[in-house]
Amino acid sequence: MIKVAIVGGTGYTGVELLRLLSNHPDVDIRLITSRSEAGMPVSDMFPNLRGHVDLLFSEPDDEALAKCDVVFFATPHTVAMSSVPALMQRGVRVIDLSADFRLKDTDLWAQWYNTPHTCPEYAEQAVYGLPELNRSQIRDAQLVAVAGCYPTAVQLGFYPLLKAGLIDPMQLIADAKSGTSGAGRKAALGTLLTEAGESMKAYGVSGHRHLPEIRQTLTQMAGGDIGLTFVPHLTPMIRGIHATLYGRLKHQVDLQALFEQHYADEPFVDVMPAGAHPETRSVRGANVCRLAVHQPQGDNTVVVLSVIDNLVKGASGQAIQCMNIMFGLTETQGLHSIATLP
Amino acid sequence: MIKVAIVGGTGYTGVELLRLLSNHPDVDIRLITSRSEAGMPVSDMFPNLRGHVDLLFSEPDDEALAKCDVVFFATPHTVAMSSVPALMQRGVRVIDLSADFRLKDTDLWAQWYNTPHTCPEYAEQAVYGLPELNRSQIRDAQLVAVAGCYPTAVQLGFYPLLKAGLIDPMQLIADAKSGTSGAGRKAALGTLLTEAGESMKAYGVSGHRHLPEIRQTLTQMAGGDIGLTFVPHLTPMIRGIHATLYGRLKHQVDLQALFEQHYADEPFVDVMPAGAHPETRSVRGANVCRLAVHQPQGDNTVVVLSVIDNLVKGASGQAIQCMNIMFGLTETQGLHSIATLP
Amino acid sequence: MIKVAIVGGTGYTGVELLRLLSNHPDVDIRLITSRSEAGMPVSDMFPNLRGHVDLLFSEPDDEALAKCDVVFFATPHTVAMSSVPALMQRGVRVIDLSADFRLKDTDLWAQWYNTPHTCPEYAEQAVYGLPELNRSQIRDAQLVAVAGCYPTAVQLGFYPLLKAGLIDPMQLIADAKSGTSGAGRKAALGTLLTEAGESMKAYGVSGHRHLPEIRQTLTQMAGGDIGLTFVPHLTPMIRGIHATLYGRLKHQVDLQALFEQHYADEPFVDVMPAGAHPETRSVRGANVCRLAVHQPQGDNTVVVLSVIDNLVKGASGQAIQCMNIMFGLTETQGLHSIATLP
Amino acid sequence: MIKVAIVGGTGYTGVELLRLLSNHPDVDIRLITSRSEAGMPVSDMFPNLRGHVDLLFSEPDDEALAKCDVVFFATPHTVAMSSVPALMQRGVRVIDLSADFRLKDTDLWAQWYNTPHTCPEYAEQAVYGLPELNRSQIRDAQLVAVAGCYPTAVQLGFYPLLKAGLIDPMQLIADAKSGTSGAGRKAALGTLLTEAGESMKAYGVSGHRHLPEIRQTLTQMAGGDIGLTFVPHLTPMIRGIHATLYGRLKHQVDLQALFEQHYADEPFVDVMPAGAHPETRSVRGANVCRLAVHQPQGDNTVVVLSVIDNLVKGASGQAIQCMNIMFGLTETQGLHSIATLP
Repeated sequence: MIKVAIVGGTGYTGVELLRLLSNHPDVDIRLITSRSEAGMPVSDMFPNLRGHVDLLFSEPDDEALAKCDVVFFATPHTVAMSSVPALMQRGVRVIDLSADFRLKDTDLWAQWYNTPHTCPEYAEQAVYGLPELNRSQIRDAQLVAVAGCYPTAVQLGFYPLLKAGLIDPMQLIADAKSGTSGAGRKAALGTLLTEAGESMKAYGVSGHRHLPEIRQTLTQMAGGDIGLTFVPHLTPMIRGIHATLYGRLKHQVDLQALFEQHYADEPFVDVMPAGAHPETRSVRGANVCRLAVHQPQGDNTVVVLSVIDNLVKGASGQAIQCMNIMFGLTETQGLHSIATLP
Repeated sequence: MIKVAIVGGTGYTGVELLRLLSNHPDVDIRLITSRSEAGMPVSDMFPNLRGHVDLLFSEPDDEALAKCDVVFFATPHTVAMSSVPALMQRGVRVIDLSADFRLKDTDLWAQWYNTPHTCPEYAEQAVYGLPELNRSQIRDAQLVAVAGCYPTAVQLGFYPLLKAGLIDPMQLIADAKSGTSGAGRKAALGTLLTEAGESMKAYGVSGHRHLPEIRQTLTQMAGGDIGLTFVPHLTPMIRGIHATLYGRLKHQVDLQALFEQHYADEPFVDVMPAGAHPETRSVRGANVCRLAVHQPQGDNTVVVLSVIDNLVKGASGQAIQCMNIMFGLTETQGLHSIATLP
Repeated sequence: MIKVAIVGGTGYTGVELLRLLSNHPDVDIRLITSRSEAGMPVSDMFPNLRGHVDLLFSEPDDEALAKCDVVFFATPHTVAMSSVPALMQRGVRVIDLSADFRLKDTDLWAQWYNTPHTCPEYAEQAVYGLPELNRSQIRDAQLVAVAGCYPTAVQLGFYPLLKAGLIDPMQLIADAKSGTSGAGRKAALGTLLTEAGESMKAYGVSGHRHLPEIRQTLTQMAGGDIGLTFVPHLTPMIRGIHATLYGRLKHQVDLQALFEQHYADEPFVDVMPAGAHPETRSVRGANVCRLAVHQPQGDNTVVVLSVIDNLVKGASGQAIQCMNIMFGLTETQGLHSIATLP
Repeated sequence: MIKVAIVGGTGYTGVELLRLLSNHPDVDIRLITSRSEAGMPVSDMFPNLRGHVDLLFSEPDDEALAKCDVVFFATPHTVAMSSVPALMQRGVRVIDLSADFRLKDTDLWAQWYNTPHTCPEYAEQAVYGLPELNRSQIRDAQLVAVAGCYPTAVQLGFYPLLKAGLIDPMQLIADAKSGTSGAGRKAALGTLLTEAGESMKAYGVSGHRHLPEIRQTLTQMAGGDIGLTFVPHLTPMIRGIHATLYGRLKHQVDLQALFEQHYADEPFVDVMPAGAHPETRSVRGANVCRLAVHQPQGDNTVVVLSVIDNLVKGASGQAIQCMNIMFGLTETQGLHSIATLP
């Protein structure tokens, strides 16, 4: 049994880790920390866990964490950055769901997150946790920086096209729509049901923190410079990201075959049949990215539709997928749950 | 492995049976029928099942059904009634999720469903599929009529009070709120998002088909006549029933202790702590009924709050719970999934 | 033109007052105050008002307020209490949408609101702003305490029955469902779309602040003691209250005729035809309460269905209705807007 | 008073015409037809109109229609086509909200609508009802083909850029998100709350009927060929369209000034301040298009955000705006209603 700890369990990625890990046959959840809620039963905060998780939130405690095989950080940015080095020096492996170690360029990180990066050498060493891109590096990593939600949806959609050199890398457009759980579990005006319900809006058009992350990965995929316009939107639903991706085709190929071959061996990427329109609800609660590729009206614009559950394949499920790889388990272990529909 | 068939798999209880049964370790789903969709892969209709269920819908075929150990009927009323007798005569066990065999009084049934009942002797023989009430009879039943969604929520809430003789059985009020999946998967005007979204309404106040079913069970629980006012409401959400139950206390007891003791051994009834307000989302996708009991302002009105997922504990999950009992399996087998929250 | 000021314009009742008053032909909105947002154009906060309202939020200023004919308070409780006496001494009329002056028993007020009441004599003098009950007193009032949202829906539904002495006043049940705008425009965890969406729950079952207000009015209507169980519920929608009311009939009458006659002359109470089920969306944005009365199955329980928009007939619309009465205008002036449907 | 008739009043554009016209001071609504519902009070179908509209649906009757000054067609496609010629020959003016007369190329129309066009000469003569483009022609038109919902949002967003020749007309992308009321008021599986709620999907990516309409107008605006990729999405809300438009800038200008100047005199186009993100709820129920223009990260991609209420500025409100122009009224007459927010 893998001894697991979760730091920062009061957010949505925390409860989702618990939901998934508590049905994982090879995992023993040892502790879950929350400075503010220490002593409270986890299931008092998340009643869906009643009867499934008996843990209490505990104070962060380096000794206790150091006894675990792996520690998940489900914390706001800067928290992992300040705790991870000490843990890693004691040999613990770390899977960070926050943004702290995703960017290799820590000056760029500092600029987007408005605070200095305190351990650039760990950012350097961290493996970007997108298994479809970095599976072998994840296997041996001590520190995995799990890919963000928007980035996962956008990157998996563009990957086959960029790798094949099929589209102009300087003219990429990602129009992404997210449910409000992406904003996290925190009191805020803008994501009240009264404010975000029955309405649609773009936000962060001038620049969103996921932009440099996506750029970094797409550059790697393209093997050179890319130009990306990324427009996120807030959608009146709880879970789900729908990324609609646009590229300029440089020449004609069988796009459907390209996508099917590219992802033929991936357990968690589902290339839908030609002509399909994936719905976010078809992945709700499940660790899967469903893709469809279109070439509307035969024009030279390719359109990729990419859907994930932002809390699963976009966060906690992907983190567990990384853990399975890191510990030599079957990659799908504990990740069989099927989306509830309707 | 139990050989299982599903008749009428194109509705919401059908897809929910598939979602749950496909992760059940003791079940082999042999066939799923649909007259209208024969030949279509199930996962074309329900893309959440892609990668999990490889079956095609098939024409109803008595020979094939007769080779199964158990057949689930997830059909509109009158369908089971016309097919069940032949199957049962060949020794197959039947779990009917429709209303066909729920009422012992088939004249009453005929009146509420506007059509004659064609096999009253089977209605007589059927066991009402509410494990918390009829566990031992379910074990030996050849035909189980799974309790309806509203009835499950209402009956489990009133049960401890009626059994203890604590409330006036002639003055029961059940104010129930349901998501729109209770109306089934069929094209209809009233449950369009444009019609049912962002709005709340009561319906069927003069009389709803679940009224005689609830009356029948409450009468059994009370051991005598009961008087019930049942008002269902349509709520702008997909899944979930919240029943708010009112009774007049005949004398004072420790209501919290009464409920906790009554359901102490039940794996799928969760009595919440005193003062709690269960949310329907805490049971979404999970086979559980959560209850809370209140006595507001110390008055002699008791208020019970009862929540279920209408498609799980109110239908398909409960049907599988019955199957587990009928086949001597652990009652919770295949029913461990945790509600997704948020 | 009536010179109007609004104190506390950053909440939902504030923006709703602006929406309605800016189309009112006899009103000149002079100022709208907000300590925190002074200097900001109102339409920056509420973009629906762009092109309709050119005001800036201003600091509260007694001199400016005193020059108005009427001041609306759209503030949290205790704010009006501290400002109203000075204004009234300068002859200004006040319409308070908060709870400060609704209860005549200010000790009871202090108990429910956990703070002393600082001007009981004004509470004594205030007229309860429910025009259907107190129209003539409102006409001459200097201080009107507009009825709350739940109270309006519950009281208008019970009124004909209690006044006619038709039901047992000791056994009243009000099961009320509200959209989340009733919780106001403030950052909070419980009313996030992620927390309140796709879910239903009761809250405050042990006691809600609207309980003493409703009791006070029902006691007046009944002309004697009443017994009330009031259970509010949070519903996943933005606007609307649906109150489902239960009473025990003492004798049989033509309930439909009773309701129609009782409200025959009321411009803002709509008694629906026999058998109807009013929807909250039919009153969204409109200053109307729609009622339907049922006697299910001929039993001696009467069920009244009552719907309002909590921000209009339950707050800002009703406040303007009171203003029209106070200033001798046609009662419906400025209140003609029709609910948008769908 | 302008004598008005509505043909086909049982859909959402019909009820919206009634909501708006019944508060229009210069209009007398003479009749509203529905073959299927003749004899039923309109307010039985649309209870929001109770107390505001006393009409009954009537059988279509050419004599009665011919006595009106203007007839609105709020019908599915092909209905107007078959009735309009006779009416126009009797001198009646027609405002058609359907697609019948929007395309000048009736062969193209026949191809997209799978049926021959029966009166191409009327399509030739019809004026496309987008006042911001064709105001003067609308003034004198006998037949106006009101612009569609997606087209209105997309065209108003691209107009300033295309007219100024600022963007490459061959590389236009319109990613549009619509609430489900765009699908109309008809029983259908795909727009049930259970199917369309809590989910996001693209549809019609290979080709949507609004594509040729948008192409026709953009070609006119650009004064030459254009290349457009148009991807519509279904969003879990009732009303609203959010179009996110992408163009490749040919050179740098002050985009904010361009948009403000272009629409300076338009009563129903609101150019938001630089950096703004319009929300669909800010236009719900109101006849306005709100626009914001962005140039993210200083790249040469321009992003325009365009929101409308699909039933108002995208249909019925725009139709009334056209009527006001046709009859020499103030263009804003009857169209002052403010969006309800929240």
